[in-house]
Amino acid sequence: MQEQLIQQAKAAKAAAQRMALLKTNTKNTALLAMADALTNHASQIISENEKDMEAGRHQGLSLALLDRLMLNDDRIESMASGLRQVASLKDPIGEGNKVWIGADGIQITQISTPIGVVGMIYEARPNVTVDAAALCLKAGNAVMLKGGSEAIHSNTIIASIISRSAVEAGLPEGCIQFITSTDREAVKVMMKLNGLIDVLIPRGGAGLIKAVVENSSVPVIETGVGNCHVYLDASAEPVMAEKIVINGKTHRPGVCNATETLLVHKDFAGQHLGNIADALMAKGVELRGCEKTRALVNNILPAKESDWETEYLDLVLAVKVVNSVEEAIEHIRRYGTQHSEAIVTENYSHARQFQREVDAAAVYVNASTRYTDGHQFGFGAEIGISTQKLHARGPMGLEALTSIKYMIQGNGQIRN
Amino acid sequence: MQEQLIQQAKAAKAAAQRMALLKTNTKNTALLAMADALTNHASQIISENEKDMEAGRHQGLSLALLDRLMLNDDRIESMASGLRQVASLKDPIGEGNKVWIGADGIQITQISTPIGVVGMIYEARPNVTVDAAALCLKAGNAVMLKGGSEAIHSNTIIASIISRSAVEAGLPEGCIQFITSTDREAVKVMMKLNGLIDVLIPRGGAGLIKAVVENSSVPVIETGVGNCHVYLDASAEPVMAEKIVINGKTHRPGVCNATETLLVHKDFAGQHLGNIADALMAKGVELRGCEKTRALVNNILPAKESDWETEYLDLVLAVKVVNSVEEAIEHIRRYGTQHSEAIVTENYSHARQFQREVDAAAVYVNASTRYTDGHQFGFGAEIGISTQKLHARGPMGLEALTSIKYMIQGNGQIRN
Repeated sequence: MQEQLIQQAKAAKAAAQRMALLKTNTKNTALLAMADALTNHASQIISENEKDMEAGRHQGLSLALLDRLMLNDDRIESMASGLRQVASLKDPIGEGNKVWIGADGIQITQISTPIGVVGMIYEARPNVTVDAAALCLKAGNAVMLKGGSEAIHSNTIIASIISRSAVEAGLPEGCIQFITSTDREAVKVMMKLNGLIDVLIPRGGAGLIKAVVENSSVPVIETGVGNCHVYLDASAEPVMAEKIVINGKTHRPGVCNATETLLVHKDFAGQHLGNIADALMAKGVELRGCEKTRALVNNILPAKESDWETEYLDLVLAVKVVNSVEEAIEHIRRYGTQHSEAIVTENYSHARQFQREVDAAAVYVNASTRYTDGHQFGFGAEIGISTQKLHARGPMGLEALTSIKYMIQGNGQIRN
Repeated sequence: MQEQLIQQAKAAKAAAQRMALLKTNTKNTALLAMADALTNHASQIISENEKDMEAGRHQGLSLALLDRLMLNDDRIESMASGLRQVASLKDPIGEGNKVWIGADGIQITQISTPIGVVGMIYEARPNVTVDAAALCLKAGNAVMLKGGSEAIHSNTIIASIISRSAVEAGLPEGCIQFITSTDREAVKVMMKLNGLIDVLIPRGGAGLIKAVVENSSVPVIETGVGNCHVYLDASAEPVMAEKIVINGKTHRPGVCNATETLLVHKDFAGQHLGNIADALMAKGVELRGCEKTRALVNNILPAKESDWETEYLDLVLAVKVVNSVEEAIEHIRRYGTQHSEAIVTENYSHARQFQREVDAAAVYVNASTRYTDGHQFGFGAEIGISTQKLHARGPMGLEALTSIKYMIQGNGQIRN
């Protein structure tokens, strides 16, 4: 298997060199052809997907996981329209807004280039196969795709359809490499392919991401954990506060930008926390509160130290009453994962202080943490949400899949 | 020792949180105070440096290494003026040129932030202690410094002087952490401090860099290897060609942007390669040539496959005659390390083709590869030259030591 993966990575690297020089139009034509191919082969995809669903039911996958795995005509159409959307985005390659004169009059231009070969390691959802390939190709990269074993039949057929149509439409042979092995060793091999794979992006559960971050010698963009907070300041507008908390917690509890801890200023809590707690509980949210919270809200469990640290990804919310915006910021500094943090306030100074002092990818004033997303940010697409500070931070669109190069024009300069 | 390092990293992280919020003026005042402190303690530094020199002589370090290690008044003054130079640079923090409206009218602003804690692992030159600290602090980071054992006395006294003066001038306690252990295990510990160290930058020999890239779970910026080429096109202006080759090879052969292989178009070679070879040999350069080269230049060794791959870092140059610009580009693709590549030509189309098709951090037309350097590029300083494609590529100035964050202003937006 190792030899097979190395061959695939070499093929990807060779393809990447040609991908980097393609015209925008060629890339877009291919993306549109890939979209059509998905639509045209929908029944074939659904029948392969049924094999995964069957196996999943046998293995006792949860209903939520089965739902993520399931493909139907609508979902295939939605993957196809994702491809068309990426085709419509501006080509991120060859751009730059920096040109200057360096030593001795050399002219230096910084332009964006593809990264090369992007390795995606992901779980469950078959649509990642399409999304990741589309974004990588649009940014002039080749891509190596390693999906989860639960979706192996779906991913295999999808990858085969899109790579065939991509090549027929003019992309270089080998630009989409799908790893058919479901062996976990395959990930280990990918993590050591320095010189062939330029970056690995793991998307999935915390265990997968941790394993890749800890063991890869290929550079990694870490995605994932979001222990996100909403802080309701003393001056928060109560109706807005309730809406933002409810949305952050209940809109889609299983995702990384969901709100996990509610911090409430004591002056606001006295009057409004009871109502907000009732509204949350009416939505089925289990609350775990500090002592002060429990004095204001009946019949909730006490929050333990571990509650402040937990990304529940579920209808559970930790609640803490604080004495000041400073205490809220300090709590976030201690327990947050630098993903998405929000303050609800009408106080200008507190809004500014919170945005300046909280160190996170996205820091909100008076909006839901759920907006941390490439589509909501207007990037037109998203390959993941980076939780590290190098290369990319927060939602990653096409730009995160590019590198740079310096082109220097001289007329015979040598250094003294 | 592990416990000690963890304590230092925690102290650095705490300091980093305060560093991020400092005013530009505070940082600059501290940098100037650090410069003065170095000047004022020059004799103390020189006497500690003498201990390293003595030990180095005992260990039989080469004259070149001893020279790199040696400090005198001039070199200390030069470190101090480096600090003053960094003080004069524009603060890279809090900047951004992107503000836009996202979904539902949220306003998104992207601004630059510090990275957090930067770990530098370096060898030999004591001036890196000062340069790295200055750049990291200016960009609002804390820094952990792990220098080589040969310079331990020099680095220890320098780090102690600059950190004391930095704190006295208003920087947070702990913002410069110097690792006094000369145990190689210290590097291994640093490589696993995820969550405390945000990035590691190794600077030194290929072995050190490879070990860090392969074993670190903390994100790494790879620096180093440059197997750089100069290609003399058929239309190259002969005098310019000779100057650029001589400069690339002999100006400072031991550095990563030195020229290691000369590629020569066959039409140019026939008339001019003999002269250029004579000029190189007159400068003491040993040539290793392909067969066609040896037919044109007398008494040189044949180049083996390994010569095309080697970064000599010495007065040795591999020489190959090629049939076309395409063959030159293909050779560079195969053997280059994507550092610095140059073409000398008067042909517009070949110049453009070379710059587009060669994938390297810096691609030159009619200038020496030696310009790949933060100072020559006008960055005012340099923390290293990245040879990877993530986060930073090529010479790294202050901007490479920053991350970003998104600040979002809403008025109650929630996602539907």
